[in-house]
Amino acid sequence: MSHVTIREVALRDGLQIEQPIPLSAKLELLEAIAATGVREVEACAFVSPTKVPSMADAAELAAELHRFPDIEFSALVASPNGAKRAVAAGLPAIEYVVAASDSFSQANVGRSAAEATAQIADIVTIAHAAGVKVEVIVATAWDCPFDGPTPPQRVVDIASAACEYGVDRLSIADTVGTAAPGRVSSLITTLRPVIGDLPLGGHFHNTRGAGLASAYTAVNAGVDRLDSSVGGLGGCPFAPGATGNIATEDLVYLLTDSGIDVDVDLEKAIAAAEVARSAVGHDLPGALLRAGDRKRV
Amino acid sequence: MSHVTIREVALRDGLQIEQPIPLSAKLELLEAIAATGVREVEACAFVSPTKVPSMADAAELAAELHRFPDIEFSALVASPNGAKRAVAAGLPAIEYVVAASDSFSQANVGRSAAEATAQIADIVTIAHAAGVKVEVIVATAWDCPFDGPTPPQRVVDIASAACEYGVDRLSIADTVGTAAPGRVSSLITTLRPVIGDLPLGGHFHNTRGAGLASAYTAVNAGVDRLDSSVGGLGGCPFAPGATGNIATEDLVYLLTDSGIDVDVDLEKAIAAAEVARSAVGHDLPGALLRAGDRKRV
Repeated sequence: MSHVTIREVALRDGLQIEQPIPLSAKLELLEAIAATGVREVEACAFVSPTKVPSMADAAELAAELHRFPDIEFSALVASPNGAKRAVAAGLPAIEYVVAASDSFSQANVGRSAAEATAQIADIVTIAHAAGVKVEVIVATAWDCPFDGPTPPQRVVDIASAACEYGVDRLSIADTVGTAAPGRVSSLITTLRPVIGDLPLGGHFHNTRGAGLASAYTAVNAGVDRLDSSVGGLGGCPFAPGATGNIATEDLVYLLTDSGIDVDVDLEKAIAAAEVARSAVGHDLPGALLRAGDRKRV
Repeated sequence: MSHVTIREVALRDGLQIEQPIPLSAKLELLEAIAATGVREVEACAFVSPTKVPSMADAAELAAELHRFPDIEFSALVASPNGAKRAVAAGLPAIEYVVAASDSFSQANVGRSAAEATAQIADIVTIAHAAGVKVEVIVATAWDCPFDGPTPPQRVVDIASAACEYGVDRLSIADTVGTAAPGRVSSLITTLRPVIGDLPLGGHFHNTRGAGLASAYTAVNAGVDRLDSSVGGLGGCPFAPGATGNIATEDLVYLLTDSGIDVDVDLEKAIAAAEVARSAVGHDLPGALLRAGDRKRV
């Protein structure tokens, strides 16, 4: 594996559970993120503004994205209606989340995993009619905070359905930050024959310290894409006090020092993490944000 | 690889840069550590009490270790004189540190790497005459905070000499927390043919977030032993504010969920981390200390 696509998720997953910040602060963060060279950015979510107030300005943010022509932006949606809003706002790619566990799916979107899976068809129809890419993110792919370990077959079933419905990409998400390398490689090895050469992404949280180890293992097991957020911005509402997404700058450090090429510049990623820290007004868990790069000469 | 020996280093590397704590607090921490089932514990260092005040009570601590007959204790030494003190105190194993970089070696012990390497002979003579095991720890095995990247040949040379002098074990230490998986597997692959089947340990700090990924990679590359400290107690004086040793409980979580057997019980390790946090009176970076175990059923 010589290259991995990093998708920067600070603006969506990173800010999701934060107190809402002004659009101008989001744009300042986006400027810093764009300067890293990253080619894909998850910009916002078209979901209920009541449930997720920090994403209420999704359409306003979307209207500014034309300023960054080198980046492919995406938005997260949770329903066909959200997909319509994202398409109308001009996003070139959407991510539709399907939780592999029924309890999480019910808590998250009020539908069973099977019902959420069936809706992939409508989402694809809506998106593809407008030339918009669709990614299915399988949430709680390893564990559910309510149901415990997720049977791998549930992930396989959703992935299989997603392929049949013609999605453009698939991701597996360690929603609650419980995955570890052995379970990561096992699931990817199971999944790859099912999805063929469909682009496959991994989404890891560092809640139990294993996020970067899982991400690196995922790359070696055949993942093409990884999500991360500058500074490790973000978190999981089910694990209070825990660290959030794997930090972009820590991921870049680890991958490039392991011979894997990425689009993101390390120093610029650290700088963007500093902007993210200012934007939310509290410290962030990213390691390089504190320790800095190693001495290289 | 089905089993890895974890050596608990909270009492030495973990406490080294902390304000000295009373012997009674160390023994309370040791009780909690012993309850985890760990089979090897780095108990103390026989070094200058002026330079490292937290280790000034090494002999007093050593006098209490007979209470824990199931654990093999070791002490760190930096000179033949330290080795004599450790042997006199009744330690069954000593670790002698040789830094692979001259600048670090000079700063640390006032000798070049070559001079420190030559002293392995005296250390082995002193220890083996008393039936005490000797491990050489190659410090700054990947990077030196002053000299930058360490040429792998310097590590190979020290390892080679250590084998000739008849040491019982070797470790490679990421002293400043800069290693990443690719560089870890590369060095181990280079080293293994040089040292044959000598037990090889890895010592990683999580300063740049890659500690656990490096440790896991080291196991896959052929390391038999890993150092860690409960709660991630410890740190590096050259990286202020950075996290310290990889946390025992996080390591146990990652390894056991990856099919690798260890001697340490996860819940007991979390409990010991809580004792460590109380002992030093400040928060510790271990992830499971905050997030807890995952739901397993």
